[in-house]
Amino acid sequence: MKDRKLLMIPGPIEFTPEVLRAMGMPTTSHVAPNFIEVFGQALERLRQVFLCPSGQPFVIAGSGTLAMDIAAANLIEPGDKALVVNTGYFSNRFADILERYGATVTQVHAPAVGDVPALEEVEAVLKEGGPSTGSGHGYKLMTITHVDTSTAVGVDVRGLAALGREHDVLVVVDGVCSVAGEEMRQEEWGIDLALTASQKAIGVPPGLALVVAGPRATDAFRNRKTPVPNFYADWTRWLPIMEGYEARQPRYFGTPPVNLIWALNVSLGQILDEGMETRFARHRRLSEAFKAAVTALGMKQVPVSPDKTATTLTAPYYPDGVDRAVLAHIKKSGVILAGGLHPAIKARYFRIGHMGVVSASDILATVGAIEKGLAQVGYKFKAGTGLAAAQAVLTT
Amino acid sequence: MKDRKLLMIPGPIEFTPEVLRAMGMPTTSHVAPNFIEVFGQALERLRQVFLCPSGQPFVIAGSGTLAMDIAAANLIEPGDKALVVNTGYFSNRFADILERYGATVTQVHAPAVGDVPALEEVEAVLKEGGPSTGSGHGYKLMTITHVDTSTAVGVDVRGLAALGREHDVLVVVDGVCSVAGEEMRQEEWGIDLALTASQKAIGVPPGLALVVAGPRATDAFRNRKTPVPNFYADWTRWLPIMEGYEARQPRYFGTPPVNLIWALNVSLGQILDEGMETRFARHRRLSEAFKAAVTALGMKQVPVSPDKTATTLTAPYYPDGVDRAVLAHIKKSGVILAGGLHPAIKARYFRIGHMGVVSASDILATVGAIEKGLAQVGYKFKAGTGLAAAQAVLTT
Repeated sequence: MKDRKLLMIPGPIEFTPEVLRAMGMPTTSHVAPNFIEVFGQALERLRQVFLCPSGQPFVIAGSGTLAMDIAAANLIEPGDKALVVNTGYFSNRFADILERYGATVTQVHAPAVGDVPALEEVEAVLKEGGPSTGSGHGYKLMTITHVDTSTAVGVDVRGLAALGREHDVLVVVDGVCSVAGEEMRQEEWGIDLALTASQKAIGVPPGLALVVAGPRATDAFRNRKTPVPNFYADWTRWLPIMEGYEARQPRYFGTPPVNLIWALNVSLGQILDEGMETRFARHRRLSEAFKAAVTALGMKQVPVSPDKTATTLTAPYYPDGVDRAVLAHIKKSGVILAGGLHPAIKARYFRIGHMGVVSASDILATVGAIEKGLAQVGYKFKAGTGLAAAQAVLTT
Repeated sequence: MKDRKLLMIPGPIEFTPEVLRAMGMPTTSHVAPNFIEVFGQALERLRQVFLCPSGQPFVIAGSGTLAMDIAAANLIEPGDKALVVNTGYFSNRFADILERYGATVTQVHAPAVGDVPALEEVEAVLKEGGPSTGSGHGYKLMTITHVDTSTAVGVDVRGLAALGREHDVLVVVDGVCSVAGEEMRQEEWGIDLALTASQKAIGVPPGLALVVAGPRATDAFRNRKTPVPNFYADWTRWLPIMEGYEARQPRYFGTPPVNLIWALNVSLGQILDEGMETRFARHRRLSEAFKAAVTALGMKQVPVSPDKTATTLTAPYYPDGVDRAVLAHIKKSGVILAGGLHPAIKARYFRIGHMGVVSASDILATVGAIEKGLAQVGYKFKAGTGLAAAQAVLTT
């Protein structure tokens, strides 16, 4: 029924045969001893993948948006001030969610699509907001979209998190398009809560919201004066479940998504077998190769400079005279790419995800399909230019 | 890794090979034409399985508790009065959820564990509450737990829904342990919203919250005066998505749980191939056979009478001198059953789910394993008594 093509969109990505096998295994009881062990192990491994030894992991059935909802619903109380470092579509969403739970949101916007807000500007706003403790006039938390899936813009999470820490603000990172691909060191960088979804660099089909909360985040939750206004997202219910399974004791709140958790544990094992440092390096290298090809083919990218660009995806503008019709040609050559998503420039660019188990051959196959597609729509370039540029990086 | 046994718990249940195959297929893009078709078809089929031609289906990544949360968050506004027809554990949960969203909850409790509230009592409370329109002093909605998974108590949804309609109250049915197994005719019976989770009689691994809302429910949502206080559950976001996919046009809010939706569509197809009437009859017949075996083996059931008992599961009390240790013996014979869940009687009973693709052979295998387990813990009975009683029903 499914026609198999290479799926190079920013999620769902390609998954390993072992992960898909776990998805299709007969479902165990959620209190079966072998499942309890798998769930417990997955929680431990999540902590390692997020590089957050002191963190509390949460694995809950839902999408990445649920993970954002969980962060906001548990950490925000009506009247709290929140700062959104805004780099696009998903930063806007976080602002919406924070407001839903009663936060007064201040946003620091990037000066242009493809750019990031300056650290100095964020710092100025934080200073103006004053300390969050004491007078109560400061920001309680700030959100950072590590990689904006709509534009491939990547921000300096390390620098922003340091600013947050300096001003005693809870640092929340939307790592949906980054965790387990982009370099992110939750504990070392002072990130209080990081979140992602299963179908991105974590390498598991969609359906899991993944959150790791550091001690300052769980403390802020414990010190709430009002109940969490969202039942399903409430850590009051989920904390005992996660602690229970990690202690290899089943607890019941909602039936866990058994097959997805089996698959998650397999994928986290594969990620840790590769090692986080090797994995970060591989993503950087493949991204560099792909971006070199894009440049060689005469395409500009949405992010304004290489240091503001994700390594998990690339967002090239179509060259002059080319539009999204080229994507259908590329698909005929066996590679599925994604169109633009950012409303302001939607029709002018496309997106390629290269994260998770992506390999050098996938990069070359994708560049090859793009070259073929561009040729088919009449774009003039020397065939093989993109491939040569990618290969030059891949062979160094 | 998994040791295969027959899983006869009240969810997750046994799934068909075709459903498991869909789970393990390479993940398509959530905007791929073949996935759009599958999602659209699943929504149409859901309407048929719920027997609600005028309903609006929602398929969202999450557990059954999320489905309950979705119902309450979208239909309740602070100050609304809600009536909970309480038959146990999951009715208590619905009361908690309704209160979380600001409802004033009145509960009509069953007179005892295993019993159901009398229709007359529910009617008296509804009358006392007055009409929900006009003065505003009446109940806005009532919740009914069709089958309480903790006790196997099944209520007269048809009678209760009629009362609700008579008093202009929105009728919400928690069908987690009933939909696609227990007879439920959403539209004909006047149920305004019915919900379930994928891992029960719907026959798909856990991870999907399934809701079908009738026109009165979506109208009540559209007439809200306050925003839905839960971002992830908000129909404002999900309605365009569901309408879009059903019109075979992809829309984006959160990434849909692609593999689970492929599996859902396969299972709904299998359910409709069997036909709802045949399926209801099969569940009644297998339940009758299993309950006959339980009785023949000298075990009483938690539900006080056959007309207050689910057909999707059975909850027998252990016979004198037997306790939950027998479950381990039964498991050694290849069948996994569930322990008690209702706090008041937890240690005194156990639970057997028999829904979805369950067959006569599964029933016999389960009775056989129970007989063996009972013999191993020293319970005195004539071997084969249970099997004979079940077979007598199965061969009529």
